[in-house]
Amino acid sequence: MGKIMVLHGPNLDLLGKREPEIYGRTTLEEINASLERLAADLGVILSIHQSNHEGDLIDLIHEAAQQCKGILINPAALSHYSIGLHDALKAVGLPVVEVHLSNIFARESFRSKSVVSPAVNGMISGFGKESYLMGLRALYALL
Amino acid sequence: MGKIMVLHGPNLDLLGKREPEIYGRTTLEEINASLERLAADLGVILSIHQSNHEGDLIDLIHEAAQQCKGILINPAALSHYSIGLHDALKAVGLPVVEVHLSNIFARESFRSKSVVSPAVNGMISGFGKESYLMGLRALYALL
Amino acid sequence: MGKIMVLHGPNLDLLGKREPEIYGRTTLEEINASLERLAADLGVILSIHQSNHEGDLIDLIHEAAQQCKGILINPAALSHYSIGLHDALKAVGLPVVEVHLSNIFARESFRSKSVVSPAVNGMISGFGKESYLMGLRALYALL
Amino acid sequence: MGKIMVLHGPNLDLLGKREPEIYGRTTLEEINASLERLAADLGVILSIHQSNHEGDLIDLIHEAAQQCKGILINPAALSHYSIGLHDALKAVGLPVVEVHLSNIFARESFRSKSVVSPAVNGMISGFGKESYLMGLRALYALL
Amino acid sequence: MGKIMVLHGPNLDLLGKREPEIYGRTTLEEINASLERLAADLGVILSIHQSNHEGDLIDLIHEAAQQCKGILINPAALSHYSIGLHDALKAVGLPVVEVHLSNIFARESFRSKSVVSPAVNGMISGFGKESYLMGLRALYALL
Amino acid sequence: MGKIMVLHGPNLDLLGKREPEIYGRTTLEEINASLERLAADLGVILSIHQSNHEGDLIDLIHEAAQQCKGILINPAALSHYSIGLHDALKAVGLPVVEVHLSNIFARESFRSKSVVSPAVNGMISGFGKESYLMGLRALYALL
Amino acid sequence: MGKIMVLHGPNLDLLGKREPEIYGRTTLEEINASLERLAADLGVILSIHQSNHEGDLIDLIHEAAQQCKGILINPAALSHYSIGLHDALKAVGLPVVEVHLSNIFARESFRSKSVVSPAVNGMISGFGKESYLMGLRALYALL
Amino acid sequence: MGKIMVLHGPNLDLLGKREPEIYGRTTLEEINASLERLAADLGVILSIHQSNHEGDLIDLIHEAAQQCKGILINPAALSHYSIGLHDALKAVGLPVVEVHLSNIFARESFRSKSVVSPAVNGMISGFGKESYLMGLRALYALL
Amino acid sequence: MGKIMVLHGPNLDLLGKREPEIYGRTTLEEINASLERLAADLGVILSIHQSNHEGDLIDLIHEAAQQCKGILINPAALSHYSIGLHDALKAVGLPVVEVHLSNIFARESFRSKSVVSPAVNGMISGFGKESYLMGLRALYALL
Amino acid sequence: MGKIMVLHGPNLDLLGKREPEIYGRTTLEEINASLERLAADLGVILSIHQSNHEGDLIDLIHEAAQQCKGILINPAALSHYSIGLHDALKAVGLPVVEVHLSNIFARESFRSKSVVSPAVNGMISGFGKESYLMGLRALYALL
Amino acid sequence: MGKIMVLHGPNLDLLGKREPEIYGRTTLEEINASLERLAADLGVILSIHQSNHEGDLIDLIHEAAQQCKGILINPAALSHYSIGLHDALKAVGLPVVEVHLSNIFARESFRSKSVVSPAVNGMISGFGKESYLMGLRALYALL
Amino acid sequence: MGKIMVLHGPNLDLLGKREPEIYGRTTLEEINASLERLAADLGVILSIHQSNHEGDLIDLIHEAAQQCKGILINPAALSHYSIGLHDALKAVGLPVVEVHLSNIFARESFRSKSVVSPAVNGMISGFGKESYLMGLRALYALL
Repeated sequence: MGKIMVLHGPNLDLLGKREPEIYGRTTLEEINASLERLAADLGVILSIHQSNHEGDLIDLIHEAAQQCKGILINPAALSHYSIGLHDALKAVGLPVVEVHLSNIFARESFRSKSVVSPAVNGMISGFGKESYLMGLRALYALL
Repeated sequence: MGKIMVLHGPNLDLLGKREPEIYGRTTLEEINASLERLAADLGVILSIHQSNHEGDLIDLIHEAAQQCKGILINPAALSHYSIGLHDALKAVGLPVVEVHLSNIFARESFRSKSVVSPAVNGMISGFGKESYLMGLRALYALL
Repeated sequence: MGKIMVLHGPNLDLLGKREPEIYGRTTLEEINASLERLAADLGVILSIHQSNHEGDLIDLIHEAAQQCKGILINPAALSHYSIGLHDALKAVGLPVVEVHLSNIFARESFRSKSVVSPAVNGMISGFGKESYLMGLRALYALL
Repeated sequence: MGKIMVLHGPNLDLLGKREPEIYGRTTLEEINASLERLAADLGVILSIHQSNHEGDLIDLIHEAAQQCKGILINPAALSHYSIGLHDALKAVGLPVVEVHLSNIFARESFRSKSVVSPAVNGMISGFGKESYLMGLRALYALL
Repeated sequence: MGKIMVLHGPNLDLLGKREPEIYGRTTLEEINASLERLAADLGVILSIHQSNHEGDLIDLIHEAAQQCKGILINPAALSHYSIGLHDALKAVGLPVVEVHLSNIFARESFRSKSVVSPAVNGMISGFGKESYLMGLRALYALL
Repeated sequence: MGKIMVLHGPNLDLLGKREPEIYGRTTLEEINASLERLAADLGVILSIHQSNHEGDLIDLIHEAAQQCKGILINPAALSHYSIGLHDALKAVGLPVVEVHLSNIFARESFRSKSVVSPAVNGMISGFGKESYLMGLRALYALL
Repeated sequence: MGKIMVLHGPNLDLLGKREPEIYGRTTLEEINASLERLAADLGVILSIHQSNHEGDLIDLIHEAAQQCKGILINPAALSHYSIGLHDALKAVGLPVVEVHLSNIFARESFRSKSVVSPAVNGMISGFGKESYLMGLRALYALL
Repeated sequence: MGKIMVLHGPNLDLLGKREPEIYGRTTLEEINASLERLAADLGVILSIHQSNHEGDLIDLIHEAAQQCKGILINPAALSHYSIGLHDALKAVGLPVVEVHLSNIFARESFRSKSVVSPAVNGMISGFGKESYLMGLRALYALL
Repeated sequence: MGKIMVLHGPNLDLLGKREPEIYGRTTLEEINASLERLAADLGVILSIHQSNHEGDLIDLIHEAAQQCKGILINPAALSHYSIGLHDALKAVGLPVVEVHLSNIFARESFRSKSVVSPAVNGMISGFGKESYLMGLRALYALL
Repeated sequence: MGKIMVLHGPNLDLLGKREPEIYGRTTLEEINASLERLAADLGVILSIHQSNHEGDLIDLIHEAAQQCKGILINPAALSHYSIGLHDALKAVGLPVVEVHLSNIFARESFRSKSVVSPAVNGMISGFGKESYLMGLRALYALL
Repeated sequence: MGKIMVLHGPNLDLLGKREPEIYGRTTLEEINASLERLAADLGVILSIHQSNHEGDLIDLIHEAAQQCKGILINPAALSHYSIGLHDALKAVGLPVVEVHLSNIFARESFRSKSVVSPAVNGMISGFGKESYLMGLRALYALL
Repeated sequence: MGKIMVLHGPNLDLLGKREPEIYGRTTLEEINASLERLAADLGVILSIHQSNHEGDLIDLIHEAAQQCKGILINPAALSHYSIGLHDALKAVGLPVVEVHLSNIFARESFRSKSVVSPAVNGMISGFGKESYLMGLRALYALL
C-alpha cells in the first residue's frame, strides 16, 4: 500500500477566509479531511503539507521521491513563475497531478499560464474542493 | 432525472488509430461505452455526438439548451481558435466541463491556449480516457 | 429593383435569450421583421439567413454573387478568425456592410479585432437592433 | 428639444482637398450643411466645431456636459493615441457616437485601433459623408 | 494502381472570377481537367472535392485514410487558422502535399503563416495552376 | 521663500463629477484649497493651473523654470503618451513629483505605464486627494 | 490604538552598503528608527520585519491579518515577479501601501512593472527614506 | 520667389539651456538666424514658428498649404506619437523635410521611431544646427 | 535557347554528409547531375554555383541579370536574414524560384520565415532533391 | 589566503539521479569533491552550500560579503526569474562567476534567458562538471 | 588635407537599372562623379568602394581607420541586420555619416529600422543622389 | 595528436585598439600567443584564423571537418544573426566551444541572444582573454 504527497502552495492556508467569491467558503482543513476520507477508501496514506515557501515545497517534492508513489499539488501563485517547482517535479520522476480550485483560465490574464503544467501528467482546474478529490482519484488511477 | 450532452470535436472519431503514442489505443467507441456505464451508475442519460464541423457542435450546444442539464465537451483542435464555441457555451448558460485526453500544456506551444476555457466551469487535461469519466462525474456534481 | 442578402453568424439564433445584459432582449425574429419593414419601404427584397456554420455562410455569399446586389452581415464570433469569410466577401465583389449589435471595442480584448473588416465597405458597431437597420440603409445608399 | 455637439478632429477642415482618393471630394462645409438639414428634420439643434487641438476638443466635450444631450465625434488622427479624449468622453457621461469617413480597418495598420472606441456607445466607419448622417440618426435614437 | 484525394478549400470554386489580378483567369474546372489528364498519364485515379466547410474537408481527409494513398490539398483561407485540418492530416498518416496558387509570402502579412504546413510533407506556393500539377507529380514521387 | 507650480492635466477640472466610484467626490477646488493650506503651513507659494492642452502644460513647465523651485504634476491621461511632457520636465531641470488620484496599476492595462515617470524624481499613486498633499510635502523636502 | 506591519523585502538589509549611488547611504536601521519616531507621533505601534524569503513575507502578511490594521511594504526585487505576495496581500484584505526607495520607472526596464501594485491601495516611488515615512502617514490616513 | 515654413516642435524654445550634453549650447535664436542667412543666400523667405502645441503646428501646416512652397520641420517629441502631424503633412501635399538635432537612433528606444517620417520626403538626424541648414538646402533643391 | 543560373547557399556543399536524418544522403554533386540531365531534356543550359558567401551569391545574381533568363535558388540559412539577397533578386527583375530540401515549416521556429520569399515568383519546400527538379521545371514554365 | 563561496541552486541536490540524459551521472558530492581538490591546489578555502530556497541563497550571498572574496554560483531554475538573486549579487560587489551544467541555450526556450547574468562577471554554460572547475579557476584569476 | 572613405553597400552597383520608380535613374557612376566634384571643391580626397560583401565593407572600414578622417556609408540592405558593420564603425572611432537614397521609413516595415544608425554621427534619408552630397558636406563639417 | 581550429569573427583584428573600456587592451596577437603556449602545453596544434567575412568562417568550419578535432570560436557580431554559422557548426559535427571576451548579457539588449549557441557544446562569456584559454581547455577536455 502506497503513500501520496499532497502539497498546497502559498496562501492556501487562508482558504475560506480569502476572497470567498472566488474560492468558496471551504477551509483547507475541510479539504484535507475530505482527502483523508477518500484516501482511506482508496487504501492510500497521505502526507499533507501547506507552505508559503517555494523552497519548502521543493524540499518536500525531493522527500516524496524517497517515500511516496505520487504527488498531488496545487501550486497556487507559484504556478505562474516557479520554474523551480517545474524542475523539481520533472527531476523526481513520480506521477504528478496539478489541481486548481478556480478556473484559472477565466481570471486575470497572468493566471492563464502555468509554468508547472508541462511537468505534470494531468491538470484539473475549476471544481473547487472537488478538484482535489478528482485529482487524488486520477493519481490513484495512474499508479 | 436529467440528460447530459457529450460532445467530441474534430478528428476524435479517429481515436485509437491516430498518433497512439500521444492518445493511446482506446477508441472513441470504448470511451463512449465507459461513459454510458458511468452514466447508468449516476442515473443520467447521455446524448453523445462527434463532429468535425464547428457549426454542428454549435447547433448541438443550442439543442442542449432545450434538452440537457449540462455539457461535457472535448473541443479538440477547435479549442485553440473557435470563439464560436466559446460564445455558444456562454450563451446557453448550462454547466460545462472541458476535457482533453493529452496534457495540452506539454505539447506544441499553439496547443497550450484554449479559447474555450474561459467559457467553462472547469477543465481536465491529460488523463486519457479517464479525463472524460472524471469530467462526467464533475459535471454530475455541479448539477 | 434589387435583392440584398442578410447574413447572421453563429449563435445569433439565440438572440434575446443569450446574455441579455450585453445584447438586449430583442430576438432575431424581431430584427428580421424590422429589416423586412425597412426593406419594403426602400423597395428592396431581402434574403435572410442565419447559420452557425462558416461554410454555409461562405456558400451563401457565393450565391449572393449571382442573385443579390449587396450583403449585410453580422459575422458574430467568426469576425475574429474567419479569413474564409474575408476571402469570400472580397471574392464576390459586392458592396458589403458589417454590423455588430454590441460595441465590440468595449468588451474582451479578443473581440476588438475583426479580420472581416478589411474586406467590407463599412462597419457599424454598438447600436443593438439599430445597427442592422442603419446597415441596411447604408448598403442601400451604396447601391 | 435638445442640443447635440458635433466634433470634427484634426485635419478635417481640409476635407475635399485632402487625399480625395481616400476621403472623397465632399468638403466639411457640405457635411455640416447636410447635418444641419437632418437636425432640422429631427428637431434637434447642433453645435458644430472643428479643431486641430486635442485640448480644444476636450474643452468642448466638457462644455457639452452642460449644454448638450449627446456627442457626435470624428476624432480623426486623435483616435489612435488620445487617451485624453477617451477620458473626457467617459467623464461627461453623455451618449457618444464615433464616426469615420473611411473604413479605418482597411488602411495602414496603425489606423486599425481606436483608443477612443471603448468610451463610446457605438462606432460607424467607412461610409463617407453618410457616416456622419447615420451617426446623428443613431445618436438621436439613443436619446 | 492507387487513388489520390485532391482537396480544394474555401472560395476556390470562384476561381477565375475571383480577383483575377492575383489568381489568374483559370477556373477550377480547368485545373481539375489538367489534374485528371496528368493523373491518367501517371496511372493514378483522382478523387477531387471542393468545399467551403472545414468540417467537410476533415471528413474527406478521414475518408482518404480508407481509400487513398495520398492527399493533395490547397487549404486556401483555412491554411491560416485551421488547426483542425492540421490535426486531420497528421492523424491519417498519409503523404500530403500542400499547394497555393499565389505566392502567399508576398501578400498580406496574415497570409504568410500556414498552420497546416507543419503537418505536410512538402509545400508549393506561387505557380498558379502549375502549383497543382507539380504537387501531384511530387505526391506521386513520394508514393 | 520659494514658489511651486502645481499642474493638473486633462479632465481633472471635472473632478468630483467624473466617475466618482474611481476618483471620489472631492472637487478640484477642494484639492486646490487643501494644497493652499498646506503651502501656507510650509511657507511656500503655489502657482496652480489646470489645462486640457498638452501645449499649455508644456508652456507652464517652461515658465516654471523661470519662476518656481519645483513642480507638482498630475499628468492624467497625458501620462500615457505625452513624450512632450517628459521632455519638458527633463529640460527644465527642476525637482518634479508626479501624482495620481487612483492607483493606475489596478485599472485598464493602458494606464499602467506612464511615459512621464522616467523624467520625475518620485511618483505617488492611489491616495486620492492625499496623493497631492503627500506630493507637495515630498517636493518641499526635495527643495 | 492599532498596530501596523512594516515589511522590507530582499536585500534591503544591505541598505547603505548597497549601490549607494542609487539608494543613498541611509541604513535600514536608520529608516526603522525614523519610522518608529513617526509611529510614536501618530500613536501607532509598528511590527517591523526584513526578510530575503518570499515565504517569510507571505507568512508575516498572514500574521498581520490577525494582529495588524494595515501593511507598509517595500517588496524590493520581489515586486517584479512574486504573484505570491500579490495574492497574500489581496487575501488578507488589509489596507496596504507599497513603497520604493528609488524611482523604479527610471531604471532597468524589468523594474518598471510591479506585479504587486494591482493588489495595493497606493504606491510611492523615488523619495528615498521619505518614501517610507510618506507611506506610513498615508496608511495611517487610510485607517 | 517662394516662401518656406520652418516649424520647431515642443521644447525647442529651451534650446541651449536644455540638456546641452545632448543638444549643444546653440540657442533657437542662433539657429533661426543661421537659417535666415541661408535663406537670403538661396533667395527664399522663411516663416519661422515654434510651438509646444500639436494643434498650433497642425494649424500652421494648413496655413503653409496656402502660402508656402515647402515645410522644414523638427517635430521634436511629437515625432514619436503625433499621427495628427503625419496626417497634416500628408494632407497639404507640399514637399517636407524632417530634421532632428541629435541622432534619435542612438538614444532611448522610444525615440528611435518617428510616426511622422512616413509622411515626409526626407529626414536628417544627428548634425545639430547643421541638420536644419542641410534640411533647408535639401528642401530648396526639391522645389 | 536560354541559360538558367542555379545557386546553392551556405553549407549545401556538405550535403549528404550533413545531418542526413534531415537532408537525406544525396550529395550536391548528385543533385547537380540530375539538374543537368533535366536541363538537357528541357534544352536549357545551367550555370551552377555554390557559395557560403552572401556577397558571392549577390554578385552571381547580378551576373545572371546579364547572362541568364531565370534563377533557381536555395538560399539555405541566408533565407532567414539576408535582405541583401531579397534586394538582389528584386533588382535584377528575372523570374526566380526558391527551393528548400526539407520542409522548413516543420523545423525550428526560426526557420519558418524566409525573408527571401517575398522577392520570388514561387517557392517549393520539403521534397528533397525533387524540390530542385520541380523548381527547374517550374522556372522553365515561367520563361 | 582567501575564501570563496560556492552556491548550488534548487534541485541540484538531486544531481546524478535527475534526468541523467541532460545532466549526466555525476553527483553533487562528486562535484564538490572535485572543487575541493582544485581549491586545495589553488590555495583557497571553499564554503559550499546547496539550497532550494531563494531566500537562503540571498542570505548566503550577504554572508559572503563579510567572509569571502568571490562567489561561484549555479542558480539553476532561479536563473530564469530571481531578480532577488540578481540584486543580491549586485549589492555585495564581489566578483561572481555563474555556471550551468548543460548548455541552457540548447534547451526549452524559457531557459535561454538568465536574469542573473547581467549581474555577474562571467558565465560558463554546457560543460557538465567542468563548468564548475572552469568557473572556480576563472574566479580565482579574477581575484 | 584629409581623405574620406565612401562605401556603397550591396546592390548599389545596379543603381539606375534597379527599381527606378524607387531609386531614380541616376547610376552609381554619376553619384560618384558628383561626389568627386564636391570633394574637389571641399579640398578632400575620396576613396570610393562598392561591395556586395559585408566582410569587404568591414575590411574597408578597418583600412579607413589607418588612412581616412571619416566615412560616408550607404549600408543598403545590410542596414537592417549587419551588427558586424555596427561594430566595425564603432570600433574605428571615426566620424561616420549614414545615407539612404530613398526614405526608408516610407517603405516595407522591415526597412524602417537600421541597426547601423546607433553607431553613426548622423543619418540622411530620402533625397536621392543629394543624400550623398549632403552627407559628404556634413561629414566635412564634422571633421 | 590532434589539431584544433580557432576562429575569430568580425572586428576582432582590432582588439586592443577597439573600445578598450569594454574589451581591454590585449591585442589579438597576444591572445593568439597565449593560445599557442597553452596548446603546446596540452600537446595540440592550433589552426588560427580571423575573418570579417561570414563566408570565410563557414568555409573554414568546413575545412575543420577534414583536418581538426574541434573548434573554438568567438563569432563576435555574427553571434547575433548568422544562422549560416549555426548551420555550419551543426553540419560538421565536431565539438565546438563558443567564447566571448565581454559578458554579452550585461550589454545592449541585441547582444544578449546568440543564434550560434544552440549549435555548440558550451559557451563562455565575460572573462576577457581568459575566455579563450578556458575555452581551449574545455574543448581539449571534450575531445
